[in-house]
Amino acid sequence: MHAITIPEPGGPEALVWDEVPDPVPGEGEVLVEVVAGAVNRADILQRQGFYDPPPGASPYPGLECSGRIAAVGPGVGGWAVGDEVCALLAGGGYAEKVAVPAGQLLPVPAGLDLKRAAALPEVVCTVWSNVFMVAHLRPGETLLVHGGSSGIGTMAIQLAKAVGARVAVTAGTKEKLDRCAELGADILINYREQDFVAELERATDGAGADVILDNMGAKYLDRNVRALAVNGRLAIIGMQGGVKGELDIGALLRKRAAISATSLRARPLEEKAAIVAAVREHVWPLVADGHVRPVVDREIPMPDAAAAHRVVEDSGHIGKVLLVVAD
Amino acid sequence: MHAITIPEPGGPEALVWDEVPDPVPGEGEVLVEVVAGAVNRADILQRQGFYDPPPGASPYPGLECSGRIAAVGPGVGGWAVGDEVCALLAGGGYAEKVAVPAGQLLPVPAGLDLKRAAALPEVVCTVWSNVFMVAHLRPGETLLVHGGSSGIGTMAIQLAKAVGARVAVTAGTKEKLDRCAELGADILINYREQDFVAELERATDGAGADVILDNMGAKYLDRNVRALAVNGRLAIIGMQGGVKGELDIGALLRKRAAISATSLRARPLEEKAAIVAAVREHVWPLVADGHVRPVVDREIPMPDAAAAHRVVEDSGHIGKVLLVVAD
Repeated sequence: MHAITIPEPGGPEALVWDEVPDPVPGEGEVLVEVVAGAVNRADILQRQGFYDPPPGASPYPGLECSGRIAAVGPGVGGWAVGDEVCALLAGGGYAEKVAVPAGQLLPVPAGLDLKRAAALPEVVCTVWSNVFMVAHLRPGETLLVHGGSSGIGTMAIQLAKAVGARVAVTAGTKEKLDRCAELGADILINYREQDFVAELERATDGAGADVILDNMGAKYLDRNVRALAVNGRLAIIGMQGGVKGELDIGALLRKRAAISATSLRARPLEEKAAIVAAVREHVWPLVADGHVRPVVDREIPMPDAAAAHRVVEDSGHIGKVLLVVAD
Repeated sequence: MHAITIPEPGGPEALVWDEVPDPVPGEGEVLVEVVAGAVNRADILQRQGFYDPPPGASPYPGLECSGRIAAVGPGVGGWAVGDEVCALLAGGGYAEKVAVPAGQLLPVPAGLDLKRAAALPEVVCTVWSNVFMVAHLRPGETLLVHGGSSGIGTMAIQLAKAVGARVAVTAGTKEKLDRCAELGADILINYREQDFVAELERATDGAGADVILDNMGAKYLDRNVRALAVNGRLAIIGMQGGVKGELDIGALLRKRAAISATSLRARPLEEKAAIVAAVREHVWPLVADGHVRPVVDREIPMPDAAAAHRVVEDSGHIGKVLLVVAD
């Protein structure tokens, strides 16, 4: 088969479409013939040499895909050759075939194009596990999403609105904020022109955000704590603004607030399977009935993954960038 | 009645036993004739002028007491004059009488001296709400308690052991660590002589603590994060080591860990009542059957509250220091 390999870490040109051995599904795994993958920021870190795959994972990048089951390994029940699926991966999604633990498979929701289903697993699992399973966002509460027009952001807006929460977003352009509003965001903050702490305070009568979904890490830590409501929960899923920051424990204590930080990729199989099962139970019906849809910025042929990485690194996109193997 | 007043913030001598008006129980409150109160570190901060009572609370210090109900205000069911009780207070425990919201009353557990019951409400509610309701300590997990010989610490050891957890403690003397061991602590760390991160790592085969109960704040923040296990939860309830500290978000994220910070005193009545109800359901049976007992260092007559504060400020005590109104 072909896969995107990384002979030497570096810029987008480090991604090389090359002939590699087919993966073999092990115990509890299936082999998926990939129709599309999707780009995540973690893939860029892996390309740059900053984010090695966890032990046992495919060496190729790619944390999600859609496709058809081509073979079923030993000990797998409930899935058959030919099934159309999408999957959460620990790696290997930038390839024509990938071996996937069965617990990380999801059926393609009714009414959704197989290709576009590749845009769902990583963002849906990330948002559901952080905003709902960890931070317990409840109806009537306010969620602040940083990077509202990202793949994660566009999914967080839709899921939070679907459960009856109020949604505030930050983004860097009017076009991105407009798209967030179309998806249901109630409070739009241009982080280039406005102070998100002050804007959120104004929009919530001083209450702040019950939950914040943050991808900036250190750069926003102090402001995020200031933006939290009493009993607020800050869920950190990325560190695009740095790794170490000063925490005002006094402010956290006065608000009786909490901070969590998670990533999906390094979790053990049983935790991933539990998240995927929760997503299938709670989110898949919302996708099937059209309340929640993947937001796809563009499709790029998988051999041109470098072009896709340039789009994501320039932050010119809204939603997900797909890598298409075959139409 | 008499109460300890604070005419001017300052050292222990700022505490003055004085004649003051009797409190009047309002809607949903009872009047308790106090038999004993107990000292908490928050009382020292209040005496120093750093911790004002929340709006509506008694101006006198004292966050817990035991005694007998002397009057029942309007709208209170389930309690009668003469009932022996202990109570979680927002203030006013250093007094002969105190008005208490009914939701913050607990019956004196069977077999427990009324006076010693004053040592329970603040520590039991703090430990239960943080270690169990927020951090969800589970059987088989490891809890690290800083200040294991404090009132909070001695209760945390007992409750964690009662649910089948493993307990590590830090303390500053061999005598204190011996007392922690008698209460059931499994891993004893002298913080003056040992590095608690290294000692805990050694004692847990590198796994770390699933839950940490911390009273030090900034001074221990970085080491606490390093001492956490994967999926670990750091519960901060005090800031004796400072308010602002550097947080390594990368370490937190790699461990998929969480930090919470809370205090009891400023919580709304309904949250306090929910905690007290949970304590009555889950902890009171353990006290009644003798698995969990208050640890009392000494009893001091309430008019000599200054002497009690000196004891606590010198950290020479183990467990709680009681302030006794009448035997």
